[in-house]
Amino acid sequence: MMTIKRHLLLISNSTLHGGGYLEHCKEHIQTFLGSKVKRVLFVPYALHDRDAYAKTARHKFEKLGYTLDSIQESPDPVDAVQKAEAIFIGGGNTFRLLKALYDNGLIPAIKKKVFEDGVPYIGSSAGTNVATISINTTNDMPIVFPPSLQALGLVPFNINPHFLDQDANSKHMGETREQRISQYHEEPNTPPVLGLREGSLLLVEGDRATLLGITRARLFLRGHSPTEHEPGEDFSFLLNQI
Amino acid sequence: MMTIKRHLLLISNSTLHGGGYLEHCKEHIQTFLGSKVKRVLFVPYALHDRDAYAKTARHKFEKLGYTLDSIQESPDPVDAVQKAEAIFIGGGNTFRLLKALYDNGLIPAIKKKVFEDGVPYIGSSAGTNVATISINTTNDMPIVFPPSLQALGLVPFNINPHFLDQDANSKHMGETREQRISQYHEEPNTPPVLGLREGSLLLVEGDRATLLGITRARLFLRGHSPTEHEPGEDFSFLLNQI
Repeated sequence: MMTIKRHLLLISNSTLHGGGYLEHCKEHIQTFLGSKVKRVLFVPYALHDRDAYAKTARHKFEKLGYTLDSIQESPDPVDAVQKAEAIFIGGGNTFRLLKALYDNGLIPAIKKKVFEDGVPYIGSSAGTNVATISINTTNDMPIVFPPSLQALGLVPFNINPHFLDQDANSKHMGETREQRISQYHEEPNTPPVLGLREGSLLLVEGDRATLLGITRARLFLRGHSPTEHEPGEDFSFLLNQI
Repeated sequence: MMTIKRHLLLISNSTLHGGGYLEHCKEHIQTFLGSKVKRVLFVPYALHDRDAYAKTARHKFEKLGYTLDSIQESPDPVDAVQKAEAIFIGGGNTFRLLKALYDNGLIPAIKKKVFEDGVPYIGSSAGTNVATISINTTNDMPIVFPPSLQALGLVPFNINPHFLDQDANSKHMGETREQRISQYHEEPNTPPVLGLREGSLLLVEGDRATLLGITRARLFLRGHSPTEHEPGEDFSFLLNQI
């Protein structure tokens, strides 16, 4: 049996209230990348100003001890992925990000790097959404139209980043996050949805998945009541459910 | 010059906090439909349980003095549209609604009824989104994948229903509604977006548009700062901007 080489760190949100960019998860990033990785390839496609975004990410990763190459600085993005030691896809608009991944032919290239070469993948917010089976459970506005909602499929389920509990005091009548996810599960054959509240991360190493961070996660399985899960809990069963 | 026969009542939200279904806009619906219309064709595609949804809508419209036919009760939805005296498309998930309109071949049929036959169209929430040029500014989760985001195009701009102001006390770090709309306007050639807060409606009669209801609207034009508009204001310029 082949060993699954997958290494993923899937972050709910890049910035936690009161903290700086990636500040709340910097130790997790360092532990995850370790000392063998020297350079990280950044994918800033989810924001409009890629150069400004690269500057922010570079500043942070250099402080953590890594050199950051941003993919739009390379003449050949597929080649940049093929040479990457580690990949970090940042947050922003998930539709814009996924469309750019398709437009640049990066979907098969990134899958190959993760599954065959074992290159570590960090995703944050939109970068976490595109790591999953599809972006069907993004919170973002469909500002552009990607050719498909199917994403990288690095895990066989959906994640809802920035998961938000209902505000009991709100007079707003738009659907709650939980209502939106249960509408997804009204559709046939829809996979589990892991609601990652701000402050939580999912670590995937091969066929093991663990919840990290400081907040609980809420898990939605089609046809079942949602369940609450503490940091440290084992989510490996989600990797084997398809 | 041909007279534009378009008659639209575009409602932000079906239910206002503390009130019943369509309660806050029932007088507007009666004034809009008048006494000539006897039967309304309801399109419940935005919710999963179409029969339950039809029951709710029928109950309300009968109290207002109209007979309601729900489109899923007809063997031929295109024929039902062709025979309609008035059309009401209800809220729910906008992606699910638009996909069903395409799947049932209703996009050209409804456009024809509105533009050529002058049949009154009422939309609420998702039903308002699909009346516009596209669903690029829906708040909904992309739980299904329609063949396009282009919608009925009964007006040449976008609406954001349930428009929500930023909550200054929130610790949530997901994008605000305004940030999401400005990300849309980072894309080239994007039309105006009218943010309809809960409690407001847009009345379109031919080439005239007027804001109705009890809340102000916020207008976003690409490359400009957003502006606030009072109920009663004339929005006809939005109809002529393309």
